[in-house]
Amino acid sequence: MEELISMPNHSLIAQSLHCAEAKVNTNGDGFGIGWYGHKPEPGLYRDTQPAWGDENLLSITKQLKSSLFFAHVRASTGTATSRSNCHPFSVGKWMCMHNGQIGGYEDIRRDVEALISDEFYRCRQGTTDSEALFLAMMSHGLDVDPVGSVQQVLAKTLELMHENDITAPLRVAMALTDGERLYAVRCSSDKIVPSLYYRLHNNSLSVVSEPLEKGGHGWYEVPCGHVMVYGGDNAPCFIPLDIPDKFCKVA
Amino acid sequence: MEELISMPNHSLIAQSLHCAEAKVNTNGDGFGIGWYGHKPEPGLYRDTQPAWGDENLLSITKQLKSSLFFAHVRASTGTATSRSNCHPFSVGKWMCMHNGQIGGYEDIRRDVEALISDEFYRCRQGTTDSEALFLAMMSHGLDVDPVGSVQQVLAKTLELMHENDITAPLRVAMALTDGERLYAVRCSSDKIVPSLYYRLHNNSLSVVSEPLEKGGHGWYEVPCGHVMVYGGDNAPCFIPLDIPDKFCKVA
Amino acid sequence: MEELISMPNHSLIAQSLHCAEAKVNTNGDGFGIGWYGHKPEPGLYRDTQPAWGDENLLSITKQLKSSLFFAHVRASTGTATSRSNCHPFSVGKWMCMHNGQIGGYEDIRRDVEALISDEFYRCRQGTTDSEALFLAMMSHGLDVDPVGSVQQVLAKTLELMHENDITAPLRVAMALTDGERLYAVRCSSDKIVPSLYYRLHNNSLSVVSEPLEKGGHGWYEVPCGHVMVYGGDNAPCFIPLDIPDKFCKVA
Amino acid sequence: MEELISMPNHSLIAQSLHCAEAKVNTNGDGFGIGWYGHKPEPGLYRDTQPAWGDENLLSITKQLKSSLFFAHVRASTGTATSRSNCHPFSVGKWMCMHNGQIGGYEDIRRDVEALISDEFYRCRQGTTDSEALFLAMMSHGLDVDPVGSVQQVLAKTLELMHENDITAPLRVAMALTDGERLYAVRCSSDKIVPSLYYRLHNNSLSVVSEPLEKGGHGWYEVPCGHVMVYGGDNAPCFIPLDIPDKFCKVA
Repeated sequence: MEELISMPNHSLIAQSLHCAEAKVNTNGDGFGIGWYGHKPEPGLYRDTQPAWGDENLLSITKQLKSSLFFAHVRASTGTATSRSNCHPFSVGKWMCMHNGQIGGYEDIRRDVEALISDEFYRCRQGTTDSEALFLAMMSHGLDVDPVGSVQQVLAKTLELMHENDITAPLRVAMALTDGERLYAVRCSSDKIVPSLYYRLHNNSLSVVSEPLEKGGHGWYEVPCGHVMVYGGDNAPCFIPLDIPDKFCKVA
Repeated sequence: MEELISMPNHSLIAQSLHCAEAKVNTNGDGFGIGWYGHKPEPGLYRDTQPAWGDENLLSITKQLKSSLFFAHVRASTGTATSRSNCHPFSVGKWMCMHNGQIGGYEDIRRDVEALISDEFYRCRQGTTDSEALFLAMMSHGLDVDPVGSVQQVLAKTLELMHENDITAPLRVAMALTDGERLYAVRCSSDKIVPSLYYRLHNNSLSVVSEPLEKGGHGWYEVPCGHVMVYGGDNAPCFIPLDIPDKFCKVA
Repeated sequence: MEELISMPNHSLIAQSLHCAEAKVNTNGDGFGIGWYGHKPEPGLYRDTQPAWGDENLLSITKQLKSSLFFAHVRASTGTATSRSNCHPFSVGKWMCMHNGQIGGYEDIRRDVEALISDEFYRCRQGTTDSEALFLAMMSHGLDVDPVGSVQQVLAKTLELMHENDITAPLRVAMALTDGERLYAVRCSSDKIVPSLYYRLHNNSLSVVSEPLEKGGHGWYEVPCGHVMVYGGDNAPCFIPLDIPDKFCKVA
Repeated sequence: MEELISMPNHSLIAQSLHCAEAKVNTNGDGFGIGWYGHKPEPGLYRDTQPAWGDENLLSITKQLKSSLFFAHVRASTGTATSRSNCHPFSVGKWMCMHNGQIGGYEDIRRDVEALISDEFYRCRQGTTDSEALFLAMMSHGLDVDPVGSVQQVLAKTLELMHENDITAPLRVAMALTDGERLYAVRCSSDKIVPSLYYRLHNNSLSVVSEPLEKGGHGWYEVPCGHVMVYGGDNAPCFIPLDIPDKFCKVA
């Protein structure tokens, strides 16, 4: 994991200092890694320090080997800096991380949380919109119909925003996995879409907000309005998100 | 503030290491202080370190003078250790800290949160039952009828627990203030009531979980099932909580 | 203090995210404030979080009033992110903060520490070159001859660097105070000198790495190779540092 | 690792709350784990939170498998709570953790640090006596003559204490490893010796301050005044420390 997290010249740690494509300059509001080892459930290491100064992160990523892991650096869009608000989030074998935001979240927070079933509301540890989306997807059958549950939750969220006259956009660049399949979601209700790239290399897939190496080749954008599904054996496939036009012109 | 927080032989800092009367031995899951200075809103300093090792706390309390302040050491009853979950909580000029818990909170968390109005749900920063009770009280008119709002929220909480067949108790030792008046609430739905003491000394009132000095005199228990109200000029008065018998035999 | 720390459009908190003139982009490796209140010793609040996400900093600075305070955001030049390495440092009534570095510090760390007397070596809490310089100055009579002790320690440090064939520069932008007088030191052994500005406004002096307001007027550079001394009543005076030419061509 | 760190009824995490045999009640001033994986150098995860509330620790130990690891909970004997002061310490392939203290350390800190060679003084990240002892041992040939270097450093430390008329004791319960062999040192200059136990079980050796299970059998004390050496294949052997009588009556 060290190779991807700390070593490339545009690594996660470098990205936490300077994001070339993000709207914020610094992702210093905590970070997290999640990885699958010999158990079905992922391991998580999250902290509120900036990634670039965290000796633990360097040491842990030097030791870990994993065929599937997430890494995230956070720039808060308003909620507090706490471990519980750091990505990735995990419930059982599922893990999720997200760049983006629900426009006007503070106005519809409780409504968004109402998309979470009682079963998964217990798992709510923080206060972010990202964790709420993930738990809502878990509640809508992420485990049995991943793409369907993503679609439903995004559509319902857009409907809530619409009902509450929120004009700020919904922007989503989200990665979800059950430890076997990876789902990368990229969409936006306006024309600004968070960046999301992937690369297939030596039979391994990387999905990142920004290419890990400056000018590196082999990196492709996840197309906007799509879910990329990758199961390890074939090429990734891309499923268009079926979200009503009135909510999401661009998708 | 140093005199009360760090200097007595049974100070808050000492209490964070050894609580003589609490059911847990160590209050090491964060701490907080809140104080009123020259503004209507209190200042807060909260952190997730144990109070006893925090140089900032020592330094800040050495400098501060305040005629009204709260200090709290936390032993989590299940929710995460984060600053947002540390007491005191504050909204506008109001401040609250709490020892105790809502029995079976995980099962009725959303119902308890539903006692919070939209206006104050925006202020929800953490995930604790304590903050939920405080925001529910704010939503029920803490600012205009403090004792009434406390009563209503506790009664509604007990009703929720009853409806959900929760047998674990509601135990409350809570302090609330608007910077002028202090309200100290002590009650329980079973026979174990969190300790809460007060002392009037040199025209200043202290309210603590445990007397600040071992064997110190002048300390009295806040009577169970009562709200103590103190406005700075008179003796504190004690108002019995009017909570239906079926919910709260002991109160 | 809020007015200077969190409110101007180029406040300390804003500076922690983007330093217009510093060689690093982000000062996210901790921060600190120190202030004088009713005691001779200053209060300190330092933490390893980035300043911009710290609710405690916002709340504390809202409450504090002080006629003399320091505020610092840190970009580590190599040593660990820990509270003990965060500025300001304080011993007794003295307080110090520093931007800059001793070139080749890792090679002469023990020699620099040998400039600290036994009395003040006890006060060494961290591992930074900045704290070492401060304690060395304390050891060389900061309390009785501030400018002289600064000069001696800088000259001895340059001599140590010279003896050890260190070509990396010594760069110093340091503020020292005993709670009554302020000493601002600015010098460098090469041509790149850390920025240091001051402004006299309403009988109060501000000394900062960068002007607190973009394009604000009334800000002047502390001249390189000088110590600015300000005692509260007169205009600041500027004393040239008397450091041997061979060590410090530019000074 | 989870089995040993979080699961037994007297696990490290439980010990961080209540130490049955230690002189302090609570080991809440940080913790650390170090483990060997597929690299010669160990991984480290250390933090200043109490171990019992750290979700990262739970998650990481669930994932890790290691044939050799250290785990430590810290009760500070005076130095600051910072990650750099948390055990285990590591240099290259070596790792060290320690319970105990150098009596009067503040008076002889610089002398003890003078036992560290320039090569290893660079590795000094914190300010503890424990790290100083470890780096002094590295400087005295821990890599080529482990028991000899331990003996020399302890003898020199005792001599320094003697020269400085320190009557407070040197107490040592230290574990050292290069990833292949384990060295457990237990001695004291007075009659109170920090506890240190070991157990051989399924060809694996555990060395702990306190038996991991209350009343568990198979646990034996490391004899005072000895270094236990264990290489993985044979039974552990015990080498008496050869320290001059005048310094260490009990050893």
